[in-house]
Amino acid sequence: MAVPPMDFASQHHALVARVERGLAKLMPPASTRPARLHTAMRYSLEAGGKRLRPVLVLAAADLFAPVSKSTSRNPKSKMTDALPAAVAVECVHTYSLIHDDLPCMDNDDLRRGRLTAHKQFDEATALLAGDALLTHAFVLLTSAYAPQSALAIALVRELAAAASSARLIGGQMEDLLAEKNPATSAAGLEFIHLNKTAAMIEAALVMGGLVGGATTRQIAILRRAGRHLGLAFQIIDDLLDATADTATLGKTAGKDARAGKATYVRLHGLAATRTRANEESAAAIAEFKKLPGGSAFLVALAEQMRARSR
Amino acid sequence: MAVPPMDFASQHHALVARVERGLAKLMPPASTRPARLHTAMRYSLEAGGKRLRPVLVLAAADLFAPVSKSTSRNPKSKMTDALPAAVAVECVHTYSLIHDDLPCMDNDDLRRGRLTAHKQFDEATALLAGDALLTHAFVLLTSAYAPQSALAIALVRELAAAASSARLIGGQMEDLLAEKNPATSAAGLEFIHLNKTAAMIEAALVMGGLVGGATTRQIAILRRAGRHLGLAFQIIDDLLDATADTATLGKTAGKDARAGKATYVRLHGLAATRTRANEESAAAIAEFKKLPGGSAFLVALAEQMRARSR
Repeated sequence: MAVPPMDFASQHHALVARVERGLAKLMPPASTRPARLHTAMRYSLEAGGKRLRPVLVLAAADLFAPVSKSTSRNPKSKMTDALPAAVAVECVHTYSLIHDDLPCMDNDDLRRGRLTAHKQFDEATALLAGDALLTHAFVLLTSAYAPQSALAIALVRELAAAASSARLIGGQMEDLLAEKNPATSAAGLEFIHLNKTAAMIEAALVMGGLVGGATTRQIAILRRAGRHLGLAFQIIDDLLDATADTATLGKTAGKDARAGKATYVRLHGLAATRTRANEESAAAIAEFKKLPGGSAFLVALAEQMRARSR
Repeated sequence: MAVPPMDFASQHHALVARVERGLAKLMPPASTRPARLHTAMRYSLEAGGKRLRPVLVLAAADLFAPVSKSTSRNPKSKMTDALPAAVAVECVHTYSLIHDDLPCMDNDDLRRGRLTAHKQFDEATALLAGDALLTHAFVLLTSAYAPQSALAIALVRELAAAASSARLIGGQMEDLLAEKNPATSAAGLEFIHLNKTAAMIEAALVMGGLVGGATTRQIAILRRAGRHLGLAFQIIDDLLDATADTATLGKTAGKDARAGKATYVRLHGLAATRTRANEESAAAIAEFKKLPGGSAFLVALAEQMRARSR
């Protein structure tokens, strides 16, 4: 095509805008019965945030979309829209935040600069809105990709595995136990980061690759990139919690330290934390560079994430 | 086959035993990391109960298994095991009970005669165990039925739709709102029963039919039967809450009435409630009788449910 290449900021803005349109289009309207439940689902989804995970889905799919290879897992890739997969990933991410913010978990009043769901509505509504968002992810995947059943199953399998008791929920459980146990080891913290954070970032990239028609080898590269990027992301989160202020973060800063929670900074110190964050970002970038020509956007995204302040 | 026909009680016992073996085999061991989470998942699943929904999955699949029709959706039906689908349905049912029992919902201490999950563990563990059980249902379906991807997608789609914000969760949300609103109408209560209770019973029968290889027409019959059976089940639940004692029920009796909650009995009186329960049971039985030869078990199950005391 004759379209000139966009710079990173424009590309990123365009992908975020696609995600926002997808959320508006692919989620049930707030007025759907019961309106209180659907209003709460949209309230939390529309709280915004960086849309990192759905952007990763779209960017990974776009890597492969222009290419039509006979080795592709999905020969119809040119016709397949990655947006439902991106929205499904954001549903699961948002559900995990809603439940994580509940009084029996992190008991947070503020998320992305707005009241958390249980503060805006009530605990029961927040609980059910989270449950419904998780479930809607699977409704979406099976309705959007039903005509390509092997792809649909691969997507459901990837997302369910990432959100499972072995990964996302397992990571949240150990995170919770770590809060009561300041003696959490480096290995324990690694388990938490790999599962609570990296699992969904891996799944986002892999799901994008599946929709785009990546080969088995390319899926493995995306998975490794996601693992490194996820670790970098969480370690930088720990850094920011220790060094930034609440207004910049849009959520309560310094909370981990006050709670005596095991974080990378607490276990390893600021300097070693910065080094590790850089190493993981570099490893993610090295993996991205192994992918087809268009990976410049993902490389730039990883660079930007390394430099983020919130 | 030369196997003599079993009586209802033996057949029922054999199906429940299959479900119990499936739960033991298809769920992660309690020792899986994090052990506290997996122990809580198994604690709630192993609390027993009637296993109604997974038994319906198996019984519906068995209706079609011996038959091999060219019109079948699933030509490999003779080789397909319905047990993973049955366990997935029980996972979703158990998750809904765990979340429903939480302090912010019904705040129940007792379930099936044992402490509820948040009483046995704590609220956060119960919340996460519920989340993990819902997610595991989709892990199970996609791993067990992956080789038959069209079947796998149909199963995920059916279960996710039944558990969605429009159905199971929507019903729970309206049930919760009804507790605070004694003026809930008959139509409002019907919405709650259809979605909070009948949706999963419909899904159980339909998923069994899908695995067994039922035709589109037979799936529609199973869906109608499930709707009637689900309504009968919930109306009888309301009757029992109003008339039985805690020891017989294994959960706190008379709770609905004390909470001033809208129930069928409160809205329509005992006599009309019994009449409606009988009508719905009869309608379910009439649908079952349209199905292939072996529906005697499902007919007998519906009869037994009508006569149940707990």
